[in-house]
Amino acid sequence: MTAVLPAKPEANLDGLCRDLAARARAAADALTSVRTDAKNRWLQAAAAALESRSAEILAANADDVAAAPGYGLNAAAIDRLTLTPARLKAAADGLRQVAALPDPVGEVREGGRRPNGLEVLKVGVPLGVVFFIYESRPNVTVDAAGLCVKSGNAVILRGGKEAIHSNTALHRVLAAELPACGLPPDAVQLVPTTDREAVGHLLRLGDLIDLAIPRGGESLIRRVAREATMPVLKHYDGNCHVYLDAAADPDMAERIVVNAKCQRPGVCNAAESLLVHAAVADTLLPRVAAALQAKGVELRGCEETRKRVPSAKPATDADHRTEFLDLVMSVKVVPDLDAAVRHINAYGSKHTDAIVTSDLAAARRFTERVDAAAVVVNASTRFNDGFELGLGAEIGISTDKFHARGPCGLRELTTYKYVVTGDGQIRG
Amino acid sequence: MTAVLPAKPEANLDGLCRDLAARARAAADALTSVRTDAKNRWLQAAAAALESRSAEILAANADDVAAAPGYGLNAAAIDRLTLTPARLKAAADGLRQVAALPDPVGEVREGGRRPNGLEVLKVGVPLGVVFFIYESRPNVTVDAAGLCVKSGNAVILRGGKEAIHSNTALHRVLAAELPACGLPPDAVQLVPTTDREAVGHLLRLGDLIDLAIPRGGESLIRRVAREATMPVLKHYDGNCHVYLDAAADPDMAERIVVNAKCQRPGVCNAAESLLVHAAVADTLLPRVAAALQAKGVELRGCEETRKRVPSAKPATDADHRTEFLDLVMSVKVVPDLDAAVRHINAYGSKHTDAIVTSDLAAARRFTERVDAAAVVVNASTRFNDGFELGLGAEIGISTDKFHARGPCGLRELTTYKYVVTGDGQIRG
Repeated sequence: MTAVLPAKPEANLDGLCRDLAARARAAADALTSVRTDAKNRWLQAAAAALESRSAEILAANADDVAAAPGYGLNAAAIDRLTLTPARLKAAADGLRQVAALPDPVGEVREGGRRPNGLEVLKVGVPLGVVFFIYESRPNVTVDAAGLCVKSGNAVILRGGKEAIHSNTALHRVLAAELPACGLPPDAVQLVPTTDREAVGHLLRLGDLIDLAIPRGGESLIRRVAREATMPVLKHYDGNCHVYLDAAADPDMAERIVVNAKCQRPGVCNAAESLLVHAAVADTLLPRVAAALQAKGVELRGCEETRKRVPSAKPATDADHRTEFLDLVMSVKVVPDLDAAVRHINAYGSKHTDAIVTSDLAAARRFTERVDAAAVVVNASTRFNDGFELGLGAEIGISTDKFHARGPCGLRELTTYKYVVTGDGQIRG
Repeated sequence: MTAVLPAKPEANLDGLCRDLAARARAAADALTSVRTDAKNRWLQAAAAALESRSAEILAANADDVAAAPGYGLNAAAIDRLTLTPARLKAAADGLRQVAALPDPVGEVREGGRRPNGLEVLKVGVPLGVVFFIYESRPNVTVDAAGLCVKSGNAVILRGGKEAIHSNTALHRVLAAELPACGLPPDAVQLVPTTDREAVGHLLRLGDLIDLAIPRGGESLIRRVAREATMPVLKHYDGNCHVYLDAAADPDMAERIVVNAKCQRPGVCNAAESLLVHAAVADTLLPRVAAALQAKGVELRGCEETRKRVPSAKPATDADHRTEFLDLVMSVKVVPDLDAAVRHINAYGSKHTDAIVTSDLAAARRFTERVDAAAVVVNASTRFNDGFELGLGAEIGISTDKFHARGPCGLRELTTYKYVVTGDGQIRG
């Protein structure tokens, strides 16, 4: 059975959303004393259920895929919407990986004893209720549920309307395993309507929901940031730079630029802009440009670039600000490292910026002055990712500076409290 | 000379505010490579200047104090506005204490080497530009400037209009020492107008300002939270509880409740509400109530309380939600620990809540389930304070969960970046 839910406006949407959030709040309160063992049991049980109940999930997904052309989805979007036995297995394995990660709840982050004998511990605790808004990739439903529950949060899931049958089936399968593992049944909820207004209603419930996480295009994120009455974990664009310093090793420079641009051009930590120190523009730039062009990259360069690479198109100011997510790269020759830093801080998106250099002072100055979530020396920008940095699975990459910066894994889904224990201390 | 600035509306207020913020932004960029030594030199020089130039500061303050009745300030507010040589000395000593604190910028918070040889460091960095909005306590001007500069942030100060002469003089003295210490002159700026609209203009500059910190009454904080386009560090009220468990030591219970309520009733970490387990209501409640009443505390209790303490007034539901900031306390008898936790989570303000118990399981359950910035066992709520918890001077106490919770010291005025260093690593 794949329950088809109404796309028509809900009569009592505000009441429905408030009830959803209130149940999440109660689940979050109960989750504060659920042990890691129980959460891991659920992750394992949910993974097994995704596999054993794959037929009903795939049948529901087939309904979505059949309806997708009617929503105007193109081939790439339909591919992202489509589940296969292999993709379900990968989602289940993702839950098993989350089970293996350390629990950030109860983690003592700092602690010690004060001169008066008070023991002060700074202890990781869940944020509470997370509202997760995403597009039509059903595997995200599984990832988000796993990360939120492991970090002790109740989650309200809101996927794209094009995936409603898949998400309903996935949610049914995941939630069915909660009670037997000793977890509150409302720890994972799905907004049970595709009414677009539901998002706005939920974003107004800052008294019940602790964090909103939008994952999708910039317009979705800006809408959520504008309407939300709770904090929002934002991931805007990744306009990432590679700067080739005067002291760059030429082989390393070519290898890193090609990898950063071409290995997976459609992701946020791919490089979009190349900066080259003027002292090596004659020697290094033609070589790196040729290597990029051999991979099919279209170059858009400044005047100094086009003197060395006549095949490059002229770059506009907008090109230097653009996250192409494609085999296109802006190129600029800069007089020195400080000019590179100024350009990055003015045009970049504070996501990931790299320098290639063998000069220690240059590396120190670049890492200190570039304002980005990750600053990389002599390696590809593609390493700014939760797995690659050692955080494990991530729920997103924050381009904000507040609370969490860069990849957000389990710990970034928590906050802390001070636990202060004494034996009768009072203040004098 | 005490420059009197216009209280009349500014003609080009938006331009003035944008210029102020842009200069702060440039100063913040320059601060990223200023060393701890230079910041500490400025803190020491500024402290010395506050003392050596006290005459001009006190003269400016006298102008404010003379004008205060015209603004309708009462005696307590005029006292907070008034500077004396001793208070200036205390402010200077505050700067010297900040100089002695460790620098959170450059602090490696985590780090290690990945299997592929990449070194990943999570390094403390400044937030950038802080907009600090406060009421008419001139010493706050000094404290905020010291904490922001030590944490590498440029600060825009906006004190109450009643303190404009004092703040102008203090800012002049503090800022005069910046260039000689190698710090950007715009690291500390004061909004150079008392025009009320300036706050609104600055709160719209989320592209230039990284954090707003309002310090004052709830209406100020709510206004800032509503209008701000940047994150806001919020400090709402402190409705703090002391819960006397069935296993509370009677002497300790009395000592802690009296201290939490009476030692300084006007501050946010003073207790406002007393909860007593029913099993000890007959024995413990009359004794603790008598001790409180002997200190002049007015009690407002539930029906069960009034059976044991007939002199208590009846408590309304609103009394249980109120931060009295005075010698008034609400009292409630609860059937068990879980009822105490539910009451605290429903009526409290997530600030500071204490339990008195000798029962380890009760202490564990209380600290785990109460959702507050600080949860205290067998000690006074009054210990939730930056100095008492070992963080050093604080810029405020956050009642939010996001970014920072509880006392916000130097580290809470920073964020982090990942610094990733390799020797040519690319992703496969």
